[in-house]
Amino acid sequence: MSTPAITPKHVSDSITEMTELVLPNDTNNLGTILGGKVMHLMDVACAIAARRHTGRTVVTAEVDSLSFLSPIHAGELVVLKAAVNRVFHTSLEVGVKVFAENLRTGQRRQTASAYFTFVAFDENGQPTPIPAAIPDTADEKRRFEEAAMRREARLKRKKG
Amino acid sequence: MSTPAITPKHVSDSITEMTELVLPNDTNNLGTILGGKVMHLMDVACAIAARRHTGRTVVTAEVDSLSFLSPIHAGELVVLKAAVNRVFHTSLEVGVKVFAENLRTGQRRQTASAYFTFVAFDENGQPTPIPAAIPDTADEKRRFEEAAMRREARLKRKKG
Amino acid sequence: MSTPAITPKHVSDSITEMTELVLPNDTNNLGTILGGKVMHLMDVACAIAARRHTGRTVVTAEVDSLSFLSPIHAGELVVLKAAVNRVFHTSLEVGVKVFAENLRTGQRRQTASAYFTFVAFDENGQPTPIPAAIPDTADEKRRFEEAAMRREARLKRKKG
Amino acid sequence: MSTPAITPKHVSDSITEMTELVLPNDTNNLGTILGGKVMHLMDVACAIAARRHTGRTVVTAEVDSLSFLSPIHAGELVVLKAAVNRVFHTSLEVGVKVFAENLRTGQRRQTASAYFTFVAFDENGQPTPIPAAIPDTADEKRRFEEAAMRREARLKRKKG
Amino acid sequence: MSTPAITPKHVSDSITEMTELVLPNDTNNLGTILGGKVMHLMDVACAIAARRHTGRTVVTAEVDSLSFLSPIHAGELVVLKAAVNRVFHTSLEVGVKVFAENLRTGQRRQTASAYFTFVAFDENGQPTPIPAAIPDTADEKRRFEEAAMRREARLKRKKG
Amino acid sequence: MSTPAITPKHVSDSITEMTELVLPNDTNNLGTILGGKVMHLMDVACAIAARRHTGRTVVTAEVDSLSFLSPIHAGELVVLKAAVNRVFHTSLEVGVKVFAENLRTGQRRQTASAYFTFVAFDENGQPTPIPAAIPDTADEKRRFEEAAMRREARLKRKKG
Repeated sequence: MSTPAITPKHVSDSITEMTELVLPNDTNNLGTILGGKVMHLMDVACAIAARRHTGRTVVTAEVDSLSFLSPIHAGELVVLKAAVNRVFHTSLEVGVKVFAENLRTGQRRQTASAYFTFVAFDENGQPTPIPAAIPDTADEKRRFEEAAMRREARLKRKKG
Repeated sequence: MSTPAITPKHVSDSITEMTELVLPNDTNNLGTILGGKVMHLMDVACAIAARRHTGRTVVTAEVDSLSFLSPIHAGELVVLKAAVNRVFHTSLEVGVKVFAENLRTGQRRQTASAYFTFVAFDENGQPTPIPAAIPDTADEKRRFEEAAMRREARLKRKKG
Repeated sequence: MSTPAITPKHVSDSITEMTELVLPNDTNNLGTILGGKVMHLMDVACAIAARRHTGRTVVTAEVDSLSFLSPIHAGELVVLKAAVNRVFHTSLEVGVKVFAENLRTGQRRQTASAYFTFVAFDENGQPTPIPAAIPDTADEKRRFEEAAMRREARLKRKKG
Repeated sequence: MSTPAITPKHVSDSITEMTELVLPNDTNNLGTILGGKVMHLMDVACAIAARRHTGRTVVTAEVDSLSFLSPIHAGELVVLKAAVNRVFHTSLEVGVKVFAENLRTGQRRQTASAYFTFVAFDENGQPTPIPAAIPDTADEKRRFEEAAMRREARLKRKKG
Repeated sequence: MSTPAITPKHVSDSITEMTELVLPNDTNNLGTILGGKVMHLMDVACAIAARRHTGRTVVTAEVDSLSFLSPIHAGELVVLKAAVNRVFHTSLEVGVKVFAENLRTGQRRQTASAYFTFVAFDENGQPTPIPAAIPDTADEKRRFEEAAMRREARLKRKKG
Repeated sequence: MSTPAITPKHVSDSITEMTELVLPNDTNNLGTILGGKVMHLMDVACAIAARRHTGRTVVTAEVDSLSFLSPIHAGELVVLKAAVNRVFHTSLEVGVKVFAENLRTGQRRQTASAYFTFVAFDENGQPTPIPAAIPDTADEKRRFEEAAMRREARLKRKKG
């Protein structure tokens, strides 16, 4: 088993899109999907983006700014989009957006977003350096800058 | 609840991509994903493509030419791509390809393919006409032509 | 771990019957069971029949002529019957029929059928010869003959 | 919706056979199936037998003499056989046996057994009389007699 | 891996409380939770109590006097309480009570109870002695005495 | 269906404890539980605490400061403790801590924590006022004060 290369990759190489149908077991008595189920899907989508970038096993370390904007109803489609925002030595931040798509009308709306921080581990279960993620578009560059500020806030919160 | 419009759509409007992680419960004692699990995912991806095109409830009627080319291993990513091939009055054919992605190396290979035929139903549970699916690219046009031949083979098989 | 004997067995030794209740999570918004769920159950029933005949790990290679004749409703019982049709060196064809049983009236009707081809693997993960499956009844003999024709069609399809 | 007939049926009309593969999520760290999973399957098999006899919704009331004789290992097949033993006005006793089948050797052994008592309910959710279950074979007649003794022990236990 | 100590523990050290929401897939067409699902939860709660007392892998051996007193409805909370009643060399009896809690009114009622007997296994998969469970309260002492009588009835039943 | 009373309750009335076993399907290839699974459990525990306080349907609105401190291994027990921190008219904040318990040694350690904000809905699906949650202990009073500061930070983040 060869070691994953440590050469930088582009942010766009990590883009992950997931599509899921809302099943009855995932809904509450208002007929809307449970927050915990959406969080589970967000974590999977972000972990895949992180593994695509690192080629490593990754473990969720922190979740920030998780907001639910509108409910997703039974029978709607859940679409998730995740991509790496920035790498910090052995950890990296991934951003994710969740959309609901009405399969009757084709309309799609954003319903949630969050930032997930993962740590990458080597074959011996030790944290391991991660190659840089190069932002190319204006949006990717903006997220790259903002990720540094969010990291500072996280470090401050931990000390406090 | 308004009636879905009967105006034609482009094949590309129905394109559906799904991404799934192989979990331990989905594998056999060779550590490869069970065929039945892959078939389940193929049906979901095709049904979403069919619902995106029709805006209707759809029911699986037939599955053709389902071949498994290579096994998918635990820890690999399953990626499915489905799109409408051709509409036949109240039914339509959807094609699907399945890929396995190694998250360590980033390599992706095709592992299965099939054709699914669905019937669309209206609010009263009756089969209902489906708007045409317009093929634009050369590949879409080839699949459009081949779908007609497959349909004839299916009709012949049923009579025989 | 001893090697499974290579002596022929009777088709009837592989007969497999499965019984499943339709649960809410397996149904669409018409209240009928999802095609993909039925396909998953068909694969499991056929794989058990193939393992009973071969004593080996088996992997799904192809699925033919999968037709859904009528929907299965929530609360109905799904009954599956599978048996080996014919052996082809390291692969074998299994036939499966699916029935829905109304637990209120006791009535049972066929809702689907298909042919599954499996390859058998030895302890080293290599394809391995399978003992012959001897057809005894008239139906078994007819399926034995038809399986040879289906195999030819499959080989022709692959070349084309 | 018509009322289920109140005419007696034969015990053999209720015989239910279920077949399940042991999946990784159902096993403990000895690699054997969890008792609770087996109990869940026993309840489903007995409930189907009870619904086949009554044509009614049934609810589990009591479980007696549930013994596990030997463990079932991952990769083995679980086979359950259930049938009505005797009817007591609005309740009935169902007996169930659980077998493990080694798919490599074809050997099968009994691993558990129990008696389940169900109450039948009508459309208004009220307990409703159940048609008699006629025992035909010597075994069915023996179980019919023993069921009356078990019922007495249950009633005595409840008073005490 | 060190050997679990063989020093006695208090009954209260094994007390286990589980809380579960009833999901749609766990209910029948009366909207009440399936008996088999409750039995599965009871087995998990009792096994955790047994593992907390023994520090060992435990396997369910027998279930006694399992009675369902009233149904649990979709949307209610299931609360389970289990504790060791008495140790018998390599086996032990655990008692469990099941409650339903209405989250709207806050009312809670008992819906089921049972006694589970487990056998403890060492690292080599052999039955292993279990430290005594010391009853402290009056209720614990009463259950300790009754457990001896139930064991005698179990042994008598097995011989008969 | 009566309206839930609007009289204040004590924080301690909402305390919710959940206990779950880590199953193979919930773990990654390091043998530790997936972050998304823990988040799902945290959401369920917090939602139960919120429903116990409000007697209402609640919907997850935001998640703050979700940190994973140490991994939970396959075979360990997950214990979650949640309680209401403070009510804000139609929303409320719930705090949750996650612990892992080694069933062999009995040792327990905290592995995660977070703050969940829920909105309560009435029978018509409209946000509805929530009775106050009275803090009694010193810890409850500290969390009550801190919750107000976190709410201000959340409102500021949304504007920005």
